[in-house]
Amino acid sequence: MFDRSAIRRSFSRLVIALVGLATAQADDSLPSWNEGPAKQAIVDFVRATTDRDGKNFVPPEERIATFDQDGTLWVEHPVYSQLRYCLERVPVLAAAHPELKRIEPFKTVLFGDREANARLSMPDLEKIAAATLSGMTTEQFQAEVKTWLASAKDPRWKHSYTDLTYEPMQEVLRYLRANGFKTSIVIGGGQDFVRAYSERIYGIPPEQVVGSVGATKYGYDKDGKPTLIKAPQLLLNDNGAGKPENIHLMIGRRPLAAFGNSAGDRQMLEYTHAGSGARLSMIILHDDATREYAYGPAQGLPNTEIGTFPQTLHDEAKKCGWTVVSMKQDWNRIFSFESN
Amino acid sequence: MFDRSAIRRSFSRLVIALVGLATAQADDSLPSWNEGPAKQAIVDFVRATTDRDGKNFVPPEERIATFDQDGTLWVEHPVYSQLRYCLERVPVLAAAHPELKRIEPFKTVLFGDREANARLSMPDLEKIAAATLSGMTTEQFQAEVKTWLASAKDPRWKHSYTDLTYEPMQEVLRYLRANGFKTSIVIGGGQDFVRAYSERIYGIPPEQVVGSVGATKYGYDKDGKPTLIKAPQLLLNDNGAGKPENIHLMIGRRPLAAFGNSAGDRQMLEYTHAGSGARLSMIILHDDATREYAYGPAQGLPNTEIGTFPQTLHDEAKKCGWTVVSMKQDWNRIFSFESN
Repeated sequence: MFDRSAIRRSFSRLVIALVGLATAQADDSLPSWNEGPAKQAIVDFVRATTDRDGKNFVPPEERIATFDQDGTLWVEHPVYSQLRYCLERVPVLAAAHPELKRIEPFKTVLFGDREANARLSMPDLEKIAAATLSGMTTEQFQAEVKTWLASAKDPRWKHSYTDLTYEPMQEVLRYLRANGFKTSIVIGGGQDFVRAYSERIYGIPPEQVVGSVGATKYGYDKDGKPTLIKAPQLLLNDNGAGKPENIHLMIGRRPLAAFGNSAGDRQMLEYTHAGSGARLSMIILHDDATREYAYGPAQGLPNTEIGTFPQTLHDEAKKCGWTVVSMKQDWNRIFSFESN
Repeated sequence: MFDRSAIRRSFSRLVIALVGLATAQADDSLPSWNEGPAKQAIVDFVRATTDRDGKNFVPPEERIATFDQDGTLWVEHPVYSQLRYCLERVPVLAAAHPELKRIEPFKTVLFGDREANARLSMPDLEKIAAATLSGMTTEQFQAEVKTWLASAKDPRWKHSYTDLTYEPMQEVLRYLRANGFKTSIVIGGGQDFVRAYSERIYGIPPEQVVGSVGATKYGYDKDGKPTLIKAPQLLLNDNGAGKPENIHLMIGRRPLAAFGNSAGDRQMLEYTHAGSGARLSMIILHDDATREYAYGPAQGLPNTEIGTFPQTLHDEAKKCGWTVVSMKQDWNRIFSFESN
């Protein structure tokens, strides 16, 4: 005969073990984050905004979180991926338009050495961007970016650029969505570029990608079929004050949480933080020269015009109650391809 | 003893009845539509795009449907609701800025009779729109529109404007969403205006409202709090070619279905229809003078500059395989407050 009480005890232990496991898993939505104030701030914020009985409860439709991409969701150093894309498109463009081989800055990109390329000025880069990001249909552009991403590799890690997303931030995206948040990317870079991979890489659909964007021109191809051609005119500049302005334009609600890493994110972070109730404004500090890069205030490096956040922003973060995330201290893993 | 075969027969009949009921309910998502080619086109389109085994199946994330609002989802005749709003805001504006009482076109709106008001030109109306739709924070504007809507009544039906949505179109919105579609409003009118009520009235969140939109300016109030002030500059004109251009900008995918009623919707309808697979482009014909209005090609009325679709569009619809919806023939009910 069975010892029923023994079975019951075993069963009770099993239930306790399973419940314990479930609790641990629930608490472990952010396994790549070390315990500390940054991780705690995220968990506290989610609890406060989703607790139906709390004073900071927010209905699901108003749960908006916005993320800068370059330097916040993936590696931006030493060169933005989109800029690499533009530079690598120049030979393709020159094959179709040989006259470019004699015109600067295209000539330097095609025939210059690495140093000459590094000296390209901002107006040069803008000319290259305008030339390589316009003139095709929106569908052709999507296809071109996807083709490039399928083979391009980062020279340091020898991984595709889309592998270089920060695993701790991917966890934040999933954790927020699991708690009813709508996650949007709000970038200074090109909206159409990010939309070519955002759904696959971040689980973020195109309509939740807000960025700088060129005009498109509606027209008809030679068969009379309607087309949208990418034009070289900048329509929206999604940097600095442009971020909250375009969040209003494209999303229409003030975010509850915002994540950034540079001076171009300041207004988005302060606009988010200025709303009522529980708020989360976070900036990522690149202070890990070994596992990623150390730049900006972490190393007393000079601020580049496009690039990392200045010391003043770091000071402002402390003053305003934003959370500074140290990649070195707060993240036990940076990329998903690394062992934990 | 029970007669098992009799029970089995009864049970079979019950199952058939229940299945029949379920089928009838599924078919009855559009009860305000009369049977006919328009209703059939909607049902066929939804079946084709959601049938996993069919050649026209579309994954849920790509199921986008776009709707013009004025004259498509609610009454636009004889005056757009947003224009009424702007005209009714003039006295409020003049109370704060008395100098407007001596300046045209504000003087006419304040002291002119109905005929003088009807003669206001397009540039006059643009001046009124710019003055009444800018100068406040985005939150203040939302609150002002909500306050106005809570008391304003349409002079013919004595109902609030938000009651004047077409019940058959509300059914289409719900039917599409129940089948995994994302429904967006794409309007020539003001995006911020519609966002003040779209969630409540149509179940459409602000980020799915695309419209003409003025710039906002990021800044700080006297307490240093970040604000977005509505500026009088037009940023996006969401009419004609602007509709597909802004669909790309704001949604980033070509719609599978589009609904409109005027010349300003032509490009959206043809852009939608030009995609591959099953497509649905529909135009609402206002041909019911008794229950709503008859205007445009239905009555051989002249085309207004802003307003209904011209005869050429009606002809194009037939040529291109778009579906023309006759309010008189296809809808057995127009408003939810009418008995069916």
